[in-house]
Amino acid sequence: MKALHELTATEARALLGQGKISAEKLVHATLEYINEREPEIEAWVCLRPDLAIQQAKELDRQGSQGLLHGIPFGAKDIFDTRDFPTTFGSPIYAHNQPAIDAVHIALMKAAGGVLLGKTVTAEFATFKGGKTHNPQRHNHTPGGSSSGSAAAVGAHMVTLATGSQTAASVIRPASFCGVIGFKPTFGKISLGGVKSLSPSLDTLGCFTRSVGDAALGVAAMSGDHALADIAPLKKKPRIASTLTYDAKQASADAVAAVNHAALLAEDVWQKDVPQIDLPKIFSDMSEIQGRIMWSESARSFTFERENYPEQLSQQLRGLIKQGAQISYAQYSADLLRAEEARHVMHALLTDNYDVLISPAAVGEAPQGLTLTGDPIFSRVWTLMGLPSITLPLFQGSTGLPVGVQLVAARGRDAYLLSVADALMKAR
Amino acid sequence: MKALHELTATEARALLGQGKISAEKLVHATLEYINEREPEIEAWVCLRPDLAIQQAKELDRQGSQGLLHGIPFGAKDIFDTRDFPTTFGSPIYAHNQPAIDAVHIALMKAAGGVLLGKTVTAEFATFKGGKTHNPQRHNHTPGGSSSGSAAAVGAHMVTLATGSQTAASVIRPASFCGVIGFKPTFGKISLGGVKSLSPSLDTLGCFTRSVGDAALGVAAMSGDHALADIAPLKKKPRIASTLTYDAKQASADAVAAVNHAALLAEDVWQKDVPQIDLPKIFSDMSEIQGRIMWSESARSFTFERENYPEQLSQQLRGLIKQGAQISYAQYSADLLRAEEARHVMHALLTDNYDVLISPAAVGEAPQGLTLTGDPIFSRVWTLMGLPSITLPLFQGSTGLPVGVQLVAARGRDAYLLSVADALMKAR
Repeated sequence: MKALHELTATEARALLGQGKISAEKLVHATLEYINEREPEIEAWVCLRPDLAIQQAKELDRQGSQGLLHGIPFGAKDIFDTRDFPTTFGSPIYAHNQPAIDAVHIALMKAAGGVLLGKTVTAEFATFKGGKTHNPQRHNHTPGGSSSGSAAAVGAHMVTLATGSQTAASVIRPASFCGVIGFKPTFGKISLGGVKSLSPSLDTLGCFTRSVGDAALGVAAMSGDHALADIAPLKKKPRIASTLTYDAKQASADAVAAVNHAALLAEDVWQKDVPQIDLPKIFSDMSEIQGRIMWSESARSFTFERENYPEQLSQQLRGLIKQGAQISYAQYSADLLRAEEARHVMHALLTDNYDVLISPAAVGEAPQGLTLTGDPIFSRVWTLMGLPSITLPLFQGSTGLPVGVQLVAARGRDAYLLSVADALMKAR
Repeated sequence: MKALHELTATEARALLGQGKISAEKLVHATLEYINEREPEIEAWVCLRPDLAIQQAKELDRQGSQGLLHGIPFGAKDIFDTRDFPTTFGSPIYAHNQPAIDAVHIALMKAAGGVLLGKTVTAEFATFKGGKTHNPQRHNHTPGGSSSGSAAAVGAHMVTLATGSQTAASVIRPASFCGVIGFKPTFGKISLGGVKSLSPSLDTLGCFTRSVGDAALGVAAMSGDHALADIAPLKKKPRIASTLTYDAKQASADAVAAVNHAALLAEDVWQKDVPQIDLPKIFSDMSEIQGRIMWSESARSFTFERENYPEQLSQQLRGLIKQGAQISYAQYSADLLRAEEARHVMHALLTDNYDVLISPAAVGEAPQGLTLTGDPIFSRVWTLMGLPSITLPLFQGSTGLPVGVQLVAARGRDAYLLSVADALMKAR
C-alpha cells in the first residue's frame, strides 16, 4: 500500500469507507509529511495540527457520510476561516480573524473535510509572489496567486487544496507545479466570505493530483455532489486545439505540450483534433479581461487604498492607480463586448466542438520567487466564464512540468471532467 | 430654508458646495432629528454620533470634492463595517466586528459620505421582522428585509440609506414607507463584504426621498459617477404596464396605483401606455425565483446551520431545510430557464418597450411587525436582474403609501432614472 499521505482523496475515501484506515491516521500521516517538507516548500501560512486531529477523531466517532469524510485539505488564505487568521497575503491583515467560514469552506467541512490550515497567496490574489517555492525546483516560482495550494499539492503535502482565479491563478500554478488545477464555470462556487478582487471574474477552484479528486473537491465546494462521479463518455468528443490570439507568447514548450495533448486525444478517440483559430471577436479579449479586472480591482481595494496605502505593495498601488484611470464608460463597453464574445464562444462550443485544448501557461515556471508568471493564456477563458482544467501531461525542455488547459462550454463541468479523466488515464 | 435634516442629498450638496452650510452642521442636525424620532421608529441597530461629527469636521477642513461630500447616510446591518459591529440581524453575530468596510461602503466613504450607523435588517436579510416600525403608522411593518433603512428615510431621519434585495427587500419596504427605493442592474454594485444569501440574486440598492438622490447614492455605491447626473429624455419613452402572472395577488390598491402611474405617464408624454401580459415563459418565474433563492440560501447558511442551529429562527431553519431538499438538478434546470427568460425579457425591453410599470407590493403595509409582507411582485424582476425603482405615487384605501415599480432593460439604469425623475416631477 502507498504511504497514507500519497493517497489521492478518492483512494483515501475508499479505504476510509471500508474501515481500513481512520481519519485520524490519515490526518496524522498528512501532518507528519507536511512537517517534513514544509521547511523547503513554505506553502503554508498557518496550520493547526491539534484542531485537525481533534476533528478527525470526531469524524471517526461519527462514522462516514460526507463526500470529503476525513479528507484533509488546505485553503488559500484569501478565504475567510473561523479557526484561522485570514491575511489575504497582506501585512494589513496580519492579525485578521474572521468570525465565519467562507461558504465553500463551510460546505467542505460539512461534507467531512478536515481543514489543516491556510496556504500562501500572492498579495490579495494578485501578482506579488509569496515565500513559497516550486516543489519541482526550489528557486522557481510555483506560480500564483494560489501559490501555496499548488505547491502543497505538488509536494504531496496534501491531496486537496483550494484556490481562486481572476486571471490565471488556478490554471497557471497547476501547470508550474505539475498538478491538476480545476476552475469550474463562473458562479458555480459561492464567493461568500472570499475577498473580492474583480466580481465579474473571480472564480474558485481546486488543486489535486487526479481528475477524480478535482471532481470530488469541486463537488463539495459547490454543493453539486453529483459532480463527484465522473461519467464515461457516451460518444467521441469533438476536440480542437487553439493557441488563441496570444500564440506569439507561447514558448516552444507550451506549443509542444498542446500538440502532445492533441495527439494523445487523437490516439484515445481515433478522431482528428484540428488546430483552430478563434473567431475574430477574441482578438482583443485578453486586453479586455485585463481592463475589466483592474477597473473592478481599483474599486474593490478602496478600503485599503484609503486606510492603509503605505502597506500595499508598490506594484499593487501602481495597478490600482492604472485601474482607477480606466473610465467607467470604457469599463461598461468592455463588459458588453465580453458578453457578446460569450455568445460567440457558446455557439462554437455547442455547434462545433465539445472541448478546446490550449496552453495553460507560456511555458515552464520562471526562475525566482518575486514574480508568479504571465497569466496571458487564461485571460480569455476566465473572461468567458468557462470551466477549465490543467492537465500535467508534458515536461518542458529543462525538465519542469508544462500543463495543458482544457476548456468546455459554460455549465459543462461534468463533461469536461469526463474528457480530462480519459486523457489522464490514457497518458 | 428647510430644516437641515429635511434637505435631500442633492439639495445639501448644492448648499455645501456654495459654502452655505457645513458638513458638521448637516451631520449634527441629522443626528439631532434621529434622536428625536428614533424612540418611536427604532430603525437603527447602532449609531456613533461622535465619530460622524469628527468625520464631518475633517471633511469641512478638506473642502468638497466627492460625490457624497458631507452627506450622512445609514447602512443596512448586512454589510461589513470596520467602525460598527455587523450583526446580520442575528443573535449569532451580536458581537461580530469586521476588519473591513464592504466595498460599496468604502466607495461611499471615499466619496465623502458620512456613515452614521447601521440600520435594522430582517434576520440575514430574509423574512423575520425586526424591531422597526413603519413611520407612517407605527403598528404596521416597514417591510423588509431592509426595514431600518426604508423607515429611517421615510421618517426623514436620514436622506440616504443602503439596502439589499434578493426577492423584494428594497422595492417593497420603499413602497410600504412611501419613499424611493432603487435597485440597479444585477452586478452593478460589488457584493464584496456583503453577507451572501443567494449569489444569483443578491443586489444592492438604496432608499431616498428623491430620484436624484437615488441616482447619487447608486453612483457612489457603484463607482459609476456619471449616473448621478440625470439626463433629460431625448424622445418619448415607450411605456407599458403589467400586473404580471401574479395579478391575482394584487390588491385593489396595487392595481389602482399602477393605473394611476400609467395615466400620469400618458399625461406627461401624451402617449398611450397599454396594459400588457408578459410572455408565456414568465408564468412560473416567481416560483423559479423562490426555488433558486432557497436552494442557494441553504448552501449559504451552511456555517450557521452547522455551528449555531439553535440560534437561527425557526422560520429560517424551516426555509433552509426546504431549500436543502431542492435537488441540484432542479436548481440547475431553474437557472437555465431563468437565463432563457432573460433573453425573452431583453428582447421585450429592447424591441417593444423602454419601461414597464408594475406593482411594487401587494398593497399597503400589513399590520404587525413580525412579518415583512409578500415579496411576490419583485420576484420576477429580481430574477431577471433588471434595474427597478419604487415611486411613492399613490395612497391606499386606509391612507398608507402604495408605490409602483418601474423596470427597464439590464444596464439601462440611467434611462430608468430619467423616466422615474420625469414622473415624480409631474405628479
